[in-house]
Amino acid sequence: MSSLVSGQVVAEHASRDSCWIIVHNKVYDVTDFLDEHPGGSKIILRYAGKDATEAYEPIHPPDAIQNNLPIEKHIGSVDPNTVAKVVKQATEEDKRRQALMDARPPLDEILNLHDFEAVAKAVLPAKAWAYYSSASDDEITIRENRAAFQRIWFRPRVLRDVTSVDWSMTILGCKSSLPIYISATALGKLGHPDGELNLTRAAAKHGVIQMIPTLASCSFDEIVDAAQPGQPLFLQLYVNRDREITKKYVQHAEKRGVKALFITVDAPQLGRREKDMRMKFVDDGAGAKVQEGQKDVKKDQGVARAISSFIDPSLSWKDIPWFRSITNMHIILKGVATPEDAILAYEAGCQGIVLSNHGGRQLDTSRSGVENLIDIVAALKTKGPWPNPNFSIFVDGGVRRASDVLKAIALGASAVGVGRGFLYAFSSYGQEGVERAIQILRDEFEMNMRLLGARTISEVVPEMVDASALRSHAGLTPPDNLYNTIYQPLGLASFKTKL
Amino acid sequence: MSSLVSGQVVAEHASRDSCWIIVHNKVYDVTDFLDEHPGGSKIILRYAGKDATEAYEPIHPPDAIQNNLPIEKHIGSVDPNTVAKVVKQATEEDKRRQALMDARPPLDEILNLHDFEAVAKAVLPAKAWAYYSSASDDEITIRENRAAFQRIWFRPRVLRDVTSVDWSMTILGCKSSLPIYISATALGKLGHPDGELNLTRAAAKHGVIQMIPTLASCSFDEIVDAAQPGQPLFLQLYVNRDREITKKYVQHAEKRGVKALFITVDAPQLGRREKDMRMKFVDDGAGAKVQEGQKDVKKDQGVARAISSFIDPSLSWKDIPWFRSITNMHIILKGVATPEDAILAYEAGCQGIVLSNHGGRQLDTSRSGVENLIDIVAALKTKGPWPNPNFSIFVDGGVRRASDVLKAIALGASAVGVGRGFLYAFSSYGQEGVERAIQILRDEFEMNMRLLGARTISEVVPEMVDASALRSHAGLTPPDNLYNTIYQPLGLASFKTKL
Amino acid sequence: MSSLVSGQVVAEHASRDSCWIIVHNKVYDVTDFLDEHPGGSKIILRYAGKDATEAYEPIHPPDAIQNNLPIEKHIGSVDPNTVAKVVKQATEEDKRRQALMDARPPLDEILNLHDFEAVAKAVLPAKAWAYYSSASDDEITIRENRAAFQRIWFRPRVLRDVTSVDWSMTILGCKSSLPIYISATALGKLGHPDGELNLTRAAAKHGVIQMIPTLASCSFDEIVDAAQPGQPLFLQLYVNRDREITKKYVQHAEKRGVKALFITVDAPQLGRREKDMRMKFVDDGAGAKVQEGQKDVKKDQGVARAISSFIDPSLSWKDIPWFRSITNMHIILKGVATPEDAILAYEAGCQGIVLSNHGGRQLDTSRSGVENLIDIVAALKTKGPWPNPNFSIFVDGGVRRASDVLKAIALGASAVGVGRGFLYAFSSYGQEGVERAIQILRDEFEMNMRLLGARTISEVVPEMVDASALRSHAGLTPPDNLYNTIYQPLGLASFKTKL
Amino acid sequence: MSSLVSGQVVAEHASRDSCWIIVHNKVYDVTDFLDEHPGGSKIILRYAGKDATEAYEPIHPPDAIQNNLPIEKHIGSVDPNTVAKVVKQATEEDKRRQALMDARPPLDEILNLHDFEAVAKAVLPAKAWAYYSSASDDEITIRENRAAFQRIWFRPRVLRDVTSVDWSMTILGCKSSLPIYISATALGKLGHPDGELNLTRAAAKHGVIQMIPTLASCSFDEIVDAAQPGQPLFLQLYVNRDREITKKYVQHAEKRGVKALFITVDAPQLGRREKDMRMKFVDDGAGAKVQEGQKDVKKDQGVARAISSFIDPSLSWKDIPWFRSITNMHIILKGVATPEDAILAYEAGCQGIVLSNHGGRQLDTSRSGVENLIDIVAALKTKGPWPNPNFSIFVDGGVRRASDVLKAIALGASAVGVGRGFLYAFSSYGQEGVERAIQILRDEFEMNMRLLGARTISEVVPEMVDASALRSHAGLTPPDNLYNTIYQPLGLASFKTKL
Repeated sequence: MSSLVSGQVVAEHASRDSCWIIVHNKVYDVTDFLDEHPGGSKIILRYAGKDATEAYEPIHPPDAIQNNLPIEKHIGSVDPNTVAKVVKQATEEDKRRQALMDARPPLDEILNLHDFEAVAKAVLPAKAWAYYSSASDDEITIRENRAAFQRIWFRPRVLRDVTSVDWSMTILGCKSSLPIYISATALGKLGHPDGELNLTRAAAKHGVIQMIPTLASCSFDEIVDAAQPGQPLFLQLYVNRDREITKKYVQHAEKRGVKALFITVDAPQLGRREKDMRMKFVDDGAGAKVQEGQKDVKKDQGVARAISSFIDPSLSWKDIPWFRSITNMHIILKGVATPEDAILAYEAGCQGIVLSNHGGRQLDTSRSGVENLIDIVAALKTKGPWPNPNFSIFVDGGVRRASDVLKAIALGASAVGVGRGFLYAFSSYGQEGVERAIQILRDEFEMNMRLLGARTISEVVPEMVDASALRSHAGLTPPDNLYNTIYQPLGLASFKTKL
Repeated sequence: MSSLVSGQVVAEHASRDSCWIIVHNKVYDVTDFLDEHPGGSKIILRYAGKDATEAYEPIHPPDAIQNNLPIEKHIGSVDPNTVAKVVKQATEEDKRRQALMDARPPLDEILNLHDFEAVAKAVLPAKAWAYYSSASDDEITIRENRAAFQRIWFRPRVLRDVTSVDWSMTILGCKSSLPIYISATALGKLGHPDGELNLTRAAAKHGVIQMIPTLASCSFDEIVDAAQPGQPLFLQLYVNRDREITKKYVQHAEKRGVKALFITVDAPQLGRREKDMRMKFVDDGAGAKVQEGQKDVKKDQGVARAISSFIDPSLSWKDIPWFRSITNMHIILKGVATPEDAILAYEAGCQGIVLSNHGGRQLDTSRSGVENLIDIVAALKTKGPWPNPNFSIFVDGGVRRASDVLKAIALGASAVGVGRGFLYAFSSYGQEGVERAIQILRDEFEMNMRLLGARTISEVVPEMVDASALRSHAGLTPPDNLYNTIYQPLGLASFKTKL
Repeated sequence: MSSLVSGQVVAEHASRDSCWIIVHNKVYDVTDFLDEHPGGSKIILRYAGKDATEAYEPIHPPDAIQNNLPIEKHIGSVDPNTVAKVVKQATEEDKRRQALMDARPPLDEILNLHDFEAVAKAVLPAKAWAYYSSASDDEITIRENRAAFQRIWFRPRVLRDVTSVDWSMTILGCKSSLPIYISATALGKLGHPDGELNLTRAAAKHGVIQMIPTLASCSFDEIVDAAQPGQPLFLQLYVNRDREITKKYVQHAEKRGVKALFITVDAPQLGRREKDMRMKFVDDGAGAKVQEGQKDVKKDQGVARAISSFIDPSLSWKDIPWFRSITNMHIILKGVATPEDAILAYEAGCQGIVLSNHGGRQLDTSRSGVENLIDIVAALKTKGPWPNPNFSIFVDGGVRRASDVLKAIALGASAVGVGRGFLYAFSSYGQEGVERAIQILRDEFEMNMRLLGARTISEVVPEMVDASALRSHAGLTPPDNLYNTIYQPLGLASFKTKL
Repeated sequence: MSSLVSGQVVAEHASRDSCWIIVHNKVYDVTDFLDEHPGGSKIILRYAGKDATEAYEPIHPPDAIQNNLPIEKHIGSVDPNTVAKVVKQATEEDKRRQALMDARPPLDEILNLHDFEAVAKAVLPAKAWAYYSSASDDEITIRENRAAFQRIWFRPRVLRDVTSVDWSMTILGCKSSLPIYISATALGKLGHPDGELNLTRAAAKHGVIQMIPTLASCSFDEIVDAAQPGQPLFLQLYVNRDREITKKYVQHAEKRGVKALFITVDAPQLGRREKDMRMKFVDDGAGAKVQEGQKDVKKDQGVARAISSFIDPSLSWKDIPWFRSITNMHIILKGVATPEDAILAYEAGCQGIVLSNHGGRQLDTSRSGVENLIDIVAALKTKGPWPNPNFSIFVDGGVRRASDVLKAIALGASAVGVGRGFLYAFSSYGQEGVERAIQILRDEFEMNMRLLGARTISEVVPEMVDASALRSHAGLTPPDNLYNTIYQPLGLASFKTKL
């Protein structure tokens, strides 16, 4: 990999028979890999003989190609001066989106987290929006996550001196200006060129804790380098089939100062996210018909599955002692849904769990984290004094308002994770968007705590909420849109002529 | 019936006074039958003196005319060379549908069973769609069947090694690659020229069990002939008023290797399916006014009732021993809805029951099979150890996702029947559609079982679901569309002029 | 009143200062009555000096003017030959409705009671539709009546010999071919020139019992005269402030063979039916502003209140013995809603009660009759053996299907009243419509009883329904349309320019 | 402040550097105040050097500028003859609204309180509508207030002599012709030039009690001066950070004859009302971007927060004895939501509480007052005989019908407050509107009490309602419109071409 290759030479390998591409100034021979590419061969062939960095970057972990392509296919470095620049022609769609970007509402007119999502929906490329917003199957759970908070009602107290209210707290020993941490979401560069760094910088400025995702668009070190000295960071971990890779990654994180390890346990396989899968077809044009007998159709997997094939479905409780042996970070299991597993996590010596259904992206019609919270707190209370300073329960999914957070805390959560909320904030306004989101949440916390009669987070108690309707899934259960779209309502007798 | 009749002679009998038709190269005198035809005389008269095979075929059991018309009306065989070919003029509607067929989404873009239904709805002739999709009265139950699954929520387990998951199983002693069997649906040729054979062939290829319907468009033997050696088949039975016909039919089926007999018990009379009934009028034009005093209006019965007059409403528990005496096949009662009847079936020595409401096509506002499952499992547990290897409970109705199937299994079902799902698959894409449907279900089972933490079907246990909302009919109960269409909402005071 | 007045003389009294009108060939001086007319003076003035019969007839009991106008204002009989015929100019609206009448669906395409309502809605004059269809306040109860039936689910039994099923029965000692009686609805001539006679004739033909309304458009005797010998009839009674009038009316009814007296107890004052009230304004044009200080605004009362001022709000339990003393007919209280009042009715020696909320036309947000049924049956069971042959419970409101009737019967009702269903049937198709409605119900009873596994009405038992969701008002509760129409949903941040 | 300033001199101070304005003929130098103005500087600069009275008046308490601007900035009185009249150019929007005013429905066509709201929505300036109609966050609670009443069903009694019914009563010792008082709402002049005086005058005429708001557009004395001798008035109090101001205000009110003091306890800070906040931006044009680092963004506060900065968030139970010491008026706490606080209020010697969530304008997803009523009545019953003549419970929020009021009374409320109902009445029709509203309510009370079988308010008992569904938030819970607007429903497979 020492030779310097000229762009002209690369350009000669521009066909299915011999296909070279340039990524980050390195040349790779991907001819044999074409049919194995989880995202399909078509997208690669578009860059055959050319620089594919721009397309590669937002949807691959930075070192994906290096790690996955056999070393003999690494042709060498390219001489940058010799590479014909790919002039990207702005499409009508690009122009439409740019016009929308220019017409975005001024940031001070953004009043809530929904506004960011509305702007992101308008300005994001369709593929990015599909990847970010999609959830699995009928997308019942993603909507249930939101609806569940609205089935919890407040019982506010009055006539308490709420001149000063304080919603700061400590999360796993780290100071946080909010009872919220930034939860891990993948592929930040799909939304903004700076990707996850938008979060890191805003978090630094406002005293918020960021959880770094395994599937970040920026590399782990880029993110940590962007952090301020002493800025607390957590790490979300997808466990690799190759445990050595995982070990190296975890120990490197600990060395770089990460405080807690959130091991994702609800994703032995990534969910079928149909919006994302359909986007794949749009990208590929009309879609050739699947060949008869082709056994393993990889074409319809969407971004999500394309990037996650390394995740180990064999991960089990037996692995927890091993994690304990390789790191001193707090170990938190992200994606627990039942009292049974909460007890197992507690007994396995973990420091906490996240009640999460992966933002509705995994098992559809799973219950929401905040609903599971009630059973799980009850179960853990049978194990000793509660709250337990050595075991934290976090909740994520569906949060849009500070009031949602306060409801979860009232029911026993230590803190709450917000993922898409911040993702949409930087997708629409970059770092400033994230800062505005934090400011909005601060305003909401101030107002809500005053109106609730709670001066500190510890005064947010179970008596302040009525969660009796939470278990009643009847009312706000999201509808089955696919079924309802197809269902043809009964008609009445027809008049003989239309009048 | 030995004489060979020329087409010209047939053509002379082309009026209400003397009406001959050709079906499958046989000539019949249907003059006296015109007013008794359950589908009305008009449709027959359209083919008076001509070859009616094409219209006859999809909606009649192959031997219907032979069995029902008095032998003296069987004129003889026609000399094929003398029959003027009926040149069917393609209507605008035919062209529109053909264009839709040509524009169907490529099969690999079909991501779920809903997609097949959407395509079928677009490409099927209106009459076929009405017959397949309709249900009785206000179509509450057909929609409740779907909604009921969504009132069951998952409680997934984590950190189990789910590297390999296996959802194959045994149904009534037959191997099945899925915990699903293909349930009986009638008149397959309305949807595709190959009718039920699409199912037989796909089932063979993928190790799935097909239940042959009494009202198939293909004859029983055609279907069995299309099966591979050893391919397991079940038989759905509508019991004839003439028990000898039934006996012959059942014993023939057993001889040909059918493994289990599913006796339909929820259809002593077929339901009033208004979409189907309205289609009848559209077909007949503006519809002459019913004659005063005409006692028994047969015109408004739709396809469903037209084909089912032979079914015996006297069928009762007293008949079960007789069935036991004529066959050694497993006897399953299809259409049980109450614990009382489940116990009776068990005590009558049946091998199982199907909790079914006939896809919502019989008694409207009946509860869904999956809701009845809870009570019925509880009742059967009082009769001895459960699960009972000699008594199976099946469920059908409303299934669209593998997750639906897993919910039913968690609650105690042995396996689940899917009818319309496969029917729409072959109506839109023929055999390939059915194969794609099976593949989609396989993908969903793999994902769902991993995410649920179940490695085999036996690990899908009651604790994995929260069915507490299932009994609460409030939220997702389907609306009364007819009532709501007519209801005129209150208005407000009117401004004097519109601005 | 012996003199014969010429039309020319009448025509001279055509102003507010002297206003004579002709009704049924009698001349009345209504000058002083103009401001007291519950329907406003404007409508009378339109007929000043002319024959007002056509406008008068459908919305007044036949003898209203005779009974209410002082005898000295009865001018005499008109010489019919001298009366200028009022040539009614067909308005655009009249033409539109006539065209709709001509285009009505053929009667055999009417498949359910909803169809009649849809046709009636199209062909009825706006005022008639408003009067018939309206209910009180927010029209919650009228819709709840319908929704309540859909919260009751069937538990059908199978494998019973249902070759013959019989849904005939005895209602208060009278034979009825259906477990339904025709409930009283007012002002039948608004819908059809023959008014209530349509019902009488169809009822005779099909063995159904009609309840004659106090506020019929046809006179009581016209209706009874139209009945066949021995045809059972019931009478609905609004009790007059003048008990002598009531006494005469009741005893006359008994003499003419009426079998049972249904005393309306839920209408001491008629409800505010806003659709009906708004119609009044449309009729009167733009509507002059109410004069300051005008104490008693009569203008906005709509048809309902205009015709009901005679009803006595003082009617109470103390009156029941008096009714017992003046008649030997069965006495039934129509409009009971609570177990407390059911017990009082029982103890007062009545022969039954109707659980009714007056079709949603009286106290809005009252519960439906079928919901009240459960509590009331339970309460009556504490009083002795049940069912009690001497005390019947009827239910009305919201019935559209035979299945609704069977649900009420399963829960303990003796029979069910259907009002609007038949009213819409004759409004759209006259007597033939009513017959078709009866035929449809018969078809539905046959099908539903077979599918339910009940061969006679006495086999329709509580175990056949699951009414557990009936008490849960959450799901299908009708929405508050007025509120929701006005409510302006929150918006999101606005883009600077629309794209 | 003795000098007389000429309009020309004022006009010289028309820039950001020196900005004088005229309000009520007084000249103020607001240059230094520009950046502190809660409503933003832009709106002031529009009137720099000019008479700002017209803009100032509806949204400021009359003495706001005098009290808040340092005395040295009070330049003096203006010579009215020298002031150039600001000729307000009627905008297209003004003309549109005027046309709507001209086309308003005649008052006698207004049939219910919804009608007033519909008219007000059409004719009010956008800013006024936003201020009046808005509520906090997702506006769940404002809609829940309405929905809660519809989850309470009536159980009416029959056969009681309801010839005369009487719904008058005593509220805190004052006679009231209705079981309703006019609750305080702010800034009446936004809706009508006479502001709150519309209420005072109508209340006098019809024997209704008005609660004067602290944030009235009319001054307290103007309102009291407009009252008739002996007309009972209540006072709503926002407690000032400067208790001396509050003391003076309260004691002045008592001296002027106010009977009861309603201290608002649910508003230590005013809620974020996004409709109101967005209106601010519309008013200011496209909105300059917020400056980086600007710490306290005041621009997005809307009217509500702009006028409420004086309210003291430190108000607590410790203040109650002080209030008791400064006044003999009844002390009522407005905004109590829990049994805990109800007991505290009772023990603190208050005379009552208002179960209110501030019309949904404070803590969103708070429960409705009428739902809280059940728990709170139960709690107070543990403290002694109930009802307690010395402690009253009032309810407000969501009332549109007399039937709502009767439901609250049946459940234990003493009387009910109606705010927006009357506000919209005078916003659309001035004093006459309020009188019509009272008349409508009277009609409804008459009808509802008759139909309920209650002759006096004391006969409205708990047994007359079924509130079992009130606790079930499932069904009618208002939807999350922001979330649902953004949520993109799943699509189906696309046909290759649109047909």
